[in-house]
Amino acid sequence: MRFHTRKWVKPEDLNANGTLFGGKLLAWIDEEAALYSIIQLENNRVVTKFMSEINFMSSARQGDIVEIGIEVNKFGTSSLVLKSEVRNKMTRETIITVENIIMVNLGEDGRPKPHGKTKIEYVRDRLASEN
Amino acid sequence: MRFHTRKWVKPEDLNANGTLFGGKLLAWIDEEAALYSIIQLENNRVVTKFMSEINFMSSARQGDIVEIGIEVNKFGTSSLVLKSEVRNKMTRETIITVENIIMVNLGEDGRPKPHGKTKIEYVRDRLASEN
Amino acid sequence: MRFHTRKWVKPEDLNANGTLFGGKLLAWIDEEAALYSIIQLENNRVVTKFMSEINFMSSARQGDIVEIGIEVNKFGTSSLVLKSEVRNKMTRETIITVENIIMVNLGEDGRPKPHGKTKIEYVRDRLASEN
Amino acid sequence: MRFHTRKWVKPEDLNANGTLFGGKLLAWIDEEAALYSIIQLENNRVVTKFMSEINFMSSARQGDIVEIGIEVNKFGTSSLVLKSEVRNKMTRETIITVENIIMVNLGEDGRPKPHGKTKIEYVRDRLASEN
Amino acid sequence: MRFHTRKWVKPEDLNANGTLFGGKLLAWIDEEAALYSIIQLENNRVVTKFMSEINFMSSARQGDIVEIGIEVNKFGTSSLVLKSEVRNKMTRETIITVENIIMVNLGEDGRPKPHGKTKIEYVRDRLASEN
Amino acid sequence: MRFHTRKWVKPEDLNANGTLFGGKLLAWIDEEAALYSIIQLENNRVVTKFMSEINFMSSARQGDIVEIGIEVNKFGTSSLVLKSEVRNKMTRETIITVENIIMVNLGEDGRPKPHGKTKIEYVRDRLASEN
Repeated sequence: MRFHTRKWVKPEDLNANGTLFGGKLLAWIDEEAALYSIIQLENNRVVTKFMSEINFMSSARQGDIVEIGIEVNKFGTSSLVLKSEVRNKMTRETIITVENIIMVNLGEDGRPKPHGKTKIEYVRDRLASEN
Repeated sequence: MRFHTRKWVKPEDLNANGTLFGGKLLAWIDEEAALYSIIQLENNRVVTKFMSEINFMSSARQGDIVEIGIEVNKFGTSSLVLKSEVRNKMTRETIITVENIIMVNLGEDGRPKPHGKTKIEYVRDRLASEN
Repeated sequence: MRFHTRKWVKPEDLNANGTLFGGKLLAWIDEEAALYSIIQLENNRVVTKFMSEINFMSSARQGDIVEIGIEVNKFGTSSLVLKSEVRNKMTRETIITVENIIMVNLGEDGRPKPHGKTKIEYVRDRLASEN
Repeated sequence: MRFHTRKWVKPEDLNANGTLFGGKLLAWIDEEAALYSIIQLENNRVVTKFMSEINFMSSARQGDIVEIGIEVNKFGTSSLVLKSEVRNKMTRETIITVENIIMVNLGEDGRPKPHGKTKIEYVRDRLASEN
Repeated sequence: MRFHTRKWVKPEDLNANGTLFGGKLLAWIDEEAALYSIIQLENNRVVTKFMSEINFMSSARQGDIVEIGIEVNKFGTSSLVLKSEVRNKMTRETIITVENIIMVNLGEDGRPKPHGKTKIEYVRDRLASEN
Repeated sequence: MRFHTRKWVKPEDLNANGTLFGGKLLAWIDEEAALYSIIQLENNRVVTKFMSEINFMSSARQGDIVEIGIEVNKFGTSSLVLKSEVRNKMTRETIITVENIIMVNLGEDGRPKPHGKTKIEYVRDRLASEN
């Protein structure tokens, strides 16, 4: 899994228990899944359709750095199925894992639309092939 | 199910597709689950431990009002298992449902601690019984 | 009075004195008044025109839960006059009361427009009557 | 009246009607009143106790600049009574006026405490008099 | 230099060291430079093009009040060159200085456009001359 | 240069011109520089001391994805000198470059303190060497 984004845990990210608020974590994962899909599918009309169960294994405190990883499980016709892990950058302890996040590619009309992709592309290659 | 909290969908809650950002929705549900547990367990050291799978059935647009409902599935020894539904206030269309959200009651040491509760209490009754 | 929305007091809601920032409280009341009006008047072009005097009776601290209540004082021709109370969910202590909040119903042109409502409607009834 | 602070109306400050959200305006006034009091009373434990009625005379749109003015009505023993006006910087149109905002000076114990001030001081003079 | 805007340092503005987060400070300066330019150039399509080096001389803590000053260095054809200083309101200690901030005036097409201004105008004079 | 963090440009990140607000960009760079330093210096008491001149070469619009890169220029005794580039993920167009960002390592007393590091370490190696 590759970890593309880091977050610095700030006061505004904490619950009353002084640990990272679970809802914030879920919002970060969803944003990262959307970013990843937009880049892979070359379409910014992408929405989250489903998230499999979420197990909060550990947490983080103010000043900690967490990083969010994304991996592709499967390319569907108009969907992209991802897997995500969030971990503590210094201890490498896993905070959360989500096995399946289904993102759907939408057309101009807001309805699912085939994306024509079947494998991960790196922007470097994509640009190169345009030459 | 009782719906205790309403949210007004603002520009800052939208994704690039112009619909309610899924991550925001998850953060709202998690906050509501925490609020509900804190009130029921009379302890503000409560954390989210688990969320069952999440199906995004419909969405909302800027200016829409969504309301967040919570229901108790089960009182565990040191946990509280909740169910949540988010719906559009005007159309009553369901946006999301989460069947199981496990909240854990923590002690001063940050470890799970029995909460001694076995059923829903209303603050009215609770205060009354103190007389 | 019915209390439809709860807020969890977070670090970002505090003043330098460690208590709930008054400005945040006013913003919450105004948002709740707008939500309530939008639902009752079935129009999301509703703006705040007037608020009567505001007395800060008590405050709240980080981790506290406050709930915001709204009640109708009067239906005007193009206005809706509300009353609001904010209280601490656990202690039921009143934090703030605003006797009159005048909300105005606007038309497409941004000017006051009669709303045709004379009493509170519950969405349940409203949907039922559409059958 | 002197205008010490300017705000730029951004998407996150708007209501669904596309105009400046009233609650945001109230939060800005309260923050400015607190800032002003902290500087005058040389104590950062200052809280809002009362706001007289608020009349929303005009509004602002995204990209507009509003400025917030504060003036002293009276120095009480442990309070400071302020007046505030918010106006549109370009048109100089008044958006809102609040005739009385009562701020209370608190001691270490969180209770009202005499502040010993009787008139406006400018930091320039205050520093000068320390020489 | 005139100081037009004050900010109250809140928990959300701090870094993990408990002092004012440098990035927040930079965002405040940039916003103030934009506000100032919009007012002077009477055009709200103004963007930041360049900032000279930034030296963080001191910091601020939660509850402190900082004020942001702006001064004009030069009127270019389609630009406005500003200087900014941020200081602690109570101690008057300088926190940061930026010698040159180049703001560019844009036309409807998003390209630089001459603004026709050669000196600072005060809104009072500007309105007066319109009579 | 390695790009560790991605941001999704949302409505709250825009200026009145509809492009990415420069101040937001500066805040993102500063946060990334702080994150990078905290990880490399294994100390979370790190502050920004200096940023060399900043040239805004292009911008971004809502829905765009930008990524923030960091590279080490030099390890000082109690400082770390970084270089940063922000670019548009899809077009790979450079938005901003900052040649020198000086971060200072602080001790418990809030004063500069030697960090003892002389080269980049990867967490993988660091953990390995602890075995």
